[in-house]
Amino acid sequence: MNNLIFPLSNDEPKYKQIYQQIKMFIEQGNLQFNDPLPSIRRLADTLHVSRNTTLTAYEQLVAEGYIRGERRKGFYVNALEQVFLQAEVITSQQIKKRNESIRVDFRSGTVNQQHFPLKIWRQFANQTLQMKSSFVYGDPFGEPLLQEQIAQYLFQARGVKVNEENIIIGSSTQQMLVYLGFLLKQDFNSIIVEEPGYNGAREAFHLHHFQQETLPVSENGAQLDLLAHLQSRLIYVTPSHHFPYGVSMSIQQRQTLIHWAKQVDGFVIEDDYDSEFRYSQQPFPALASLDQTRVIYVGTFSKSFLPGIRLSYMVLPKALIYRYKQHFAHFEQNASSLHQLTMAKFMEKGECTRHIKRMRIIYKQKMQYLVAELNKQFHEKITIIGEQSGLYVLVKFHTHHSEEWLIQAAEAYGVKVYPTSPYFINESRSEAILQFGFSNLNKHEIQLGLQLLQKAWF
Amino acid sequence: MNNLIFPLSNDEPKYKQIYQQIKMFIEQGNLQFNDPLPSIRRLADTLHVSRNTTLTAYEQLVAEGYIRGERRKGFYVNALEQVFLQAEVITSQQIKKRNESIRVDFRSGTVNQQHFPLKIWRQFANQTLQMKSSFVYGDPFGEPLLQEQIAQYLFQARGVKVNEENIIIGSSTQQMLVYLGFLLKQDFNSIIVEEPGYNGAREAFHLHHFQQETLPVSENGAQLDLLAHLQSRLIYVTPSHHFPYGVSMSIQQRQTLIHWAKQVDGFVIEDDYDSEFRYSQQPFPALASLDQTRVIYVGTFSKSFLPGIRLSYMVLPKALIYRYKQHFAHFEQNASSLHQLTMAKFMEKGECTRHIKRMRIIYKQKMQYLVAELNKQFHEKITIIGEQSGLYVLVKFHTHHSEEWLIQAAEAYGVKVYPTSPYFINESRSEAILQFGFSNLNKHEIQLGLQLLQKAWF
Repeated sequence: MNNLIFPLSNDEPKYKQIYQQIKMFIEQGNLQFNDPLPSIRRLADTLHVSRNTTLTAYEQLVAEGYIRGERRKGFYVNALEQVFLQAEVITSQQIKKRNESIRVDFRSGTVNQQHFPLKIWRQFANQTLQMKSSFVYGDPFGEPLLQEQIAQYLFQARGVKVNEENIIIGSSTQQMLVYLGFLLKQDFNSIIVEEPGYNGAREAFHLHHFQQETLPVSENGAQLDLLAHLQSRLIYVTPSHHFPYGVSMSIQQRQTLIHWAKQVDGFVIEDDYDSEFRYSQQPFPALASLDQTRVIYVGTFSKSFLPGIRLSYMVLPKALIYRYKQHFAHFEQNASSLHQLTMAKFMEKGECTRHIKRMRIIYKQKMQYLVAELNKQFHEKITIIGEQSGLYVLVKFHTHHSEEWLIQAAEAYGVKVYPTSPYFINESRSEAILQFGFSNLNKHEIQLGLQLLQKAWF
Repeated sequence: MNNLIFPLSNDEPKYKQIYQQIKMFIEQGNLQFNDPLPSIRRLADTLHVSRNTTLTAYEQLVAEGYIRGERRKGFYVNALEQVFLQAEVITSQQIKKRNESIRVDFRSGTVNQQHFPLKIWRQFANQTLQMKSSFVYGDPFGEPLLQEQIAQYLFQARGVKVNEENIIIGSSTQQMLVYLGFLLKQDFNSIIVEEPGYNGAREAFHLHHFQQETLPVSENGAQLDLLAHLQSRLIYVTPSHHFPYGVSMSIQQRQTLIHWAKQVDGFVIEDDYDSEFRYSQQPFPALASLDQTRVIYVGTFSKSFLPGIRLSYMVLPKALIYRYKQHFAHFEQNASSLHQLTMAKFMEKGECTRHIKRMRIIYKQKMQYLVAELNKQFHEKITIIGEQSGLYVLVKFHTHHSEEWLIQAAEAYGVKVYPTSPYFINESRSEAILQFGFSNLNKHEIQLGLQLLQKAWF
């Protein structure tokens, strides 16, 4: 082709338009293998642009392999197969309609927005952005400043004395269990999980194809005497606040677990996800406070602070920490270093403790209000489980309705309530149990929600 | 510091000696961030020079950014990175010691702090904290608002048309490869990786016990003709900017890869980690722009924005997206939803494009300066590789010294340079190749670093 002519707009750099146009000619077959291109000067003259502009366009095309320059001869089209067809994709509109009709959402994975210490957090977050350590890849196992604060917190609030170097920071409990699983899989092929229990943990073990044995837990606690009949040497438990039943293990039960782990030469994974929010007594000391050689302690800021910052941690026993750090020496940290450094400052200044204290009072009031209103609306038709602690209660229904029916009937009235069936492996319950979160609802919303449910269900 | 006193010789202009002495005090940490300097008059009196002399020295230091004048208050030391670091991280002994003796660090995993759009980011981050969606667990596969922005970005900047629903957001490339690995392991047991190549990806595949075959890459590109001799049906590549050599695949090579994947019924994992920073031409379109049925596209904000926010994403082909979402339906998101929502706003307002454009110019200047200075200092003793793009160059040394010797000798002179041997599986190179990052260094530091290296090595 001796010359090319096409319109140029003012919206984009000229060289880019020329590059794109020629590329399109080649891709669509208008320009074919070994076709000559106009000289730089000629094309510049035709298009009324500078030679520099056409040169830049040609250079880009050469670099990407669309054309080649031959000394003293000019530019030629390279061999290219017919355009690789690009499936047309229509940008999908996100369908949010489903949530539009919900007036009250008893979701449990939220925290209270109204009492969030916005100003202080913002202030520390802004300070963090001035630090040099915010502009590099952080420590793969967590920022030392935060590890230090977590160690102090664990000692003061959970009775656990830990070496900062045994703390691994990660983005979520599940992420840490997934990573840890690669290591544990080398020595263990099965694990005991609570029934019912946290499905998120079970899923993480399932990814690694751990066989899973179940330890039955009722509203009265775990049946630890059954441990002797199980084969596994690894167990995952929520001793301070069983998920979802809310019971806590007594000191005797805790000791039983530690003994068991020593006897079978195994480990106990203690998921201490929300022990901060205990309303009737002081939080119980962690299992890890009794023994650290056999306990893998897992904590999170998702309940005590904010799930969105994705900040969790685990404390590994001596027997595992070195191996873990070797195994993941070339892996980057998963949690934001900005959030880590901000949280470190937040804890260092005592704000974290203050925030938890404040929230414990607020959540306690909400919990009491919710329980009172539930009793008022539903009387003897229900039993409330787990009102001593945490950010939700379970409600057992003494009716013939299924969990699914109750949820759908609620939704028809604009109220979202949540099932507990995902937490059960063996579905053999006679009565439906629903989960009611309350952390981000005010009294008015709680009352409205329960009134609507009364209409929906009875 | 209320006053400074030091001897002045007659060999050089007095103002120059004063300037150099104070500069040295600051660089060596004798004067630290926010330390006050003696007044112009006072210093003139102590050193027995005219006020004009001390004024000239101070003006020079202000111009170069070492100090600043505050109206009616006097002169203060500015944040110099090394000094700044020490001031911030006092509590962490470990980091402090290691960096104390390092004056210039050619680390590549950093971004430019000076030009970070602090104010705008802060503003959007604060807005995000007011959103209700910041107080709940986010979408397990990423915030829809960010997915939308990434889809637009990929189309405009990388030529890839994607359905938002095929985008999975995660905390890091490695985390996503680890998660994806669980799925791929069901159909594949080996993978082809580049040699040399990114060790972080190799480690992720290693966790899953994938067998690894290698595809040789030289400074001139990948030897794709060898693909026919390999058994695997899965390949991990960095087509737009090979890590670490920096070469880009031509359109023919890209097509070869796609053909290969179709032929063997496999997948190409395209790691497009820093294609934004190409200096000689426009960034090349992504491999995924040619075909989306066989390409798993992986991108990150670590280079283009900030590694500390831990924000990456991948685009999965139709054949995998549904299975991935099923597999990880009960897993929580790993990336901070606050950062996701802030980034979405940042992109929506065009700030991200603006930031990348600005940084491309700044990094280009730094790259050019580094390359010029390297040539000036080391002449024919070195060959520079990969100066067309990215945030580092490789320097091949035509000496008998080993990589380790060069690194240790540099460290003895207070300069940190980085090995490339971790990227090679088979160690058979005759000459040492070092990696020089420059993103967070200014011209003065680059010059100082190379001068010190000249002393250390020759």
